[in-house]
Amino acid sequence: MKKKKLETCFSPALFIPEENHESIVVVIDILRASSAICTAFANGASEIIPVAEVSEAREYKSKGFLVAAERDGFVLDFADFGNSPFNFSAEKVKGKSIVYSTTNGTKIINLAAASYLTVIGSFLNISALSEWLLRQDRDVLLFCAGWKNRFNIEDTICAGAFAENLINSCRYSTICDSTLAAMDLWSLAGKDPVGYIEKAAQRSRLRDKGLDDCIAFCFTKDFTDKIPVMKNGRLVGNVL
Amino acid sequence: MKKKKLETCFSPALFIPEENHESIVVVIDILRASSAICTAFANGASEIIPVAEVSEAREYKSKGFLVAAERDGFVLDFADFGNSPFNFSAEKVKGKSIVYSTTNGTKIINLAAASYLTVIGSFLNISALSEWLLRQDRDVLLFCAGWKNRFNIEDTICAGAFAENLINSCRYSTICDSTLAAMDLWSLAGKDPVGYIEKAAQRSRLRDKGLDDCIAFCFTKDFTDKIPVMKNGRLVGNVL
Repeated sequence: MKKKKLETCFSPALFIPEENHESIVVVIDILRASSAICTAFANGASEIIPVAEVSEAREYKSKGFLVAAERDGFVLDFADFGNSPFNFSAEKVKGKSIVYSTTNGTKIINLAAASYLTVIGSFLNISALSEWLLRQDRDVLLFCAGWKNRFNIEDTICAGAFAENLINSCRYSTICDSTLAAMDLWSLAGKDPVGYIEKAAQRSRLRDKGLDDCIAFCFTKDFTDKIPVMKNGRLVGNVL
Repeated sequence: MKKKKLETCFSPALFIPEENHESIVVVIDILRASSAICTAFANGASEIIPVAEVSEAREYKSKGFLVAAERDGFVLDFADFGNSPFNFSAEKVKGKSIVYSTTNGTKIINLAAASYLTVIGSFLNISALSEWLLRQDRDVLLFCAGWKNRFNIEDTICAGAFAENLINSCRYSTICDSTLAAMDLWSLAGKDPVGYIEKAAQRSRLRDKGLDDCIAFCFTKDFTDKIPVMKNGRLVGNVL
C-alpha cells in the first residue's frame, strides 16, 4: 500500500488552502482553543459554532446562545465565559450549542474549512484521533495555530507527537521539514512537556494574565476519545 | 546593560518589515545562496548586485557583467554560472562585480532591505559574524530563507547555531519560540550537521539534480571572516 503524505504547517500565514482540498486537516491550538473544544465535547456539548468576529458572537448572545469568547486571553464583556477548558464543565455545556470565538483558534478553523475534513486535535484526544486517522486512507496536514501568525512551541510539539504516532505506523511518510522538526522537538519535550514549555512565549503570557491553571491539564493525554469535526460550518463531537 | 532582543523568522511569508526597521537582519540561506555569497567575497569579489527578476539579470549580462543566476537549481541559459559556492572561485570572481539572482536568496535580501542593516550569514562566516554582532548594541533578527515560503531544516539549524553564540554571551535574550526551537534543533544537529540534514527536503532536491557536491562545504565553519553587508542596494564584502 502506498503511504499517505503527512505534512505540518506552523502558521496560518503559511497555510495554502489549494494544497489541502483532499487532505484531512488537524487543527492544533492547545493553549487553549483545541483543548477547550475537546473538553466541551467530552462533557457533552452538542455542537460548537465557531465565529471569527466579535460582532457575530454578540449577535448570537442576543439570540440566547451560550457564548464563549475571548480576545488575548480576556473574556469579552457580553460572553458567558472565556477560553479555559475548565469553563466547559458538564454543568455548563451538556446538551448545549456553544458559540465560540477566540483570538486565534476560530479563525484557523474557518481557514481550514477548505480541506476535505477539519478535525480538532490536542493531547486530550491524541490516541483516539491518531487511531482514527490511521483508519482513513488520506493525506493529513497537522495545522498548528501558532500565535498571531507566529510559530509557537506548544502546538509544534503536539504536532510532533501526532506525527510520531502516524509515522511509526508505517502508513504515513513525510518529506516535510516542518514535520521532521516537530518530531525532533517532541523527542526533546516528550518526557516532560509541561517542563519543556516553561520557556514558551505563550506560557509567559498565560502566567502574566493568571490564566495558567489549565496548562498541566492541556498536556494530559487521552482525557477523551471525542474527535471534534467540522460539519456544515459547525463542530460536532464525533467524527464517527 | 539591558540585553538586546534576538528573534528568528522561519520564512519570508512570516517576515514583518515594520518590526525590523531598527534591527540587524542576518539572511541565512545556506543551501546555497548565503554560502555562495560568503565564498565569493572570501575569494575577492568586489561586490554582488542581487536582482530578483530574470529579466534584470539578463539586462546586466548584455551590459557585460558577470552573472550568476539560477532557478530551482538550474543555471539560466544566459548566465555565466549558477549558485554553487564552487563556482565563485578566485579565478572567476576576484575584483569583479557579480550580478546574482537565485530562486529564493535574492528575493529575501531585497525584502530584508527595510531593516537597519542586512548582513549575510552562513556556517562559512559564523564566528566572525557572531563576534561582530556581539560588538553591536542592537536587536538581531535571524532570517531563514526557507524554500518557497516553507520552513526548512538547514537554515533553521544554522540560525540555532548563531543563536547559541549570541545567547551564550549573555548580551542577548529571547522570548521568541522560533529562536528557542532553532537552538533545540541545533542541540540535536550540532555534532553532525551534514548527517542530520540527510532527511531534509532540500538535501533530496540537490541530490536529485546532482547539485549536492557542495553540501559538506556549506557546513564548514569559519572558512572566511568576511561579513557581506548590503550597502546602497549592493552587497559588499565587509561590514567593517
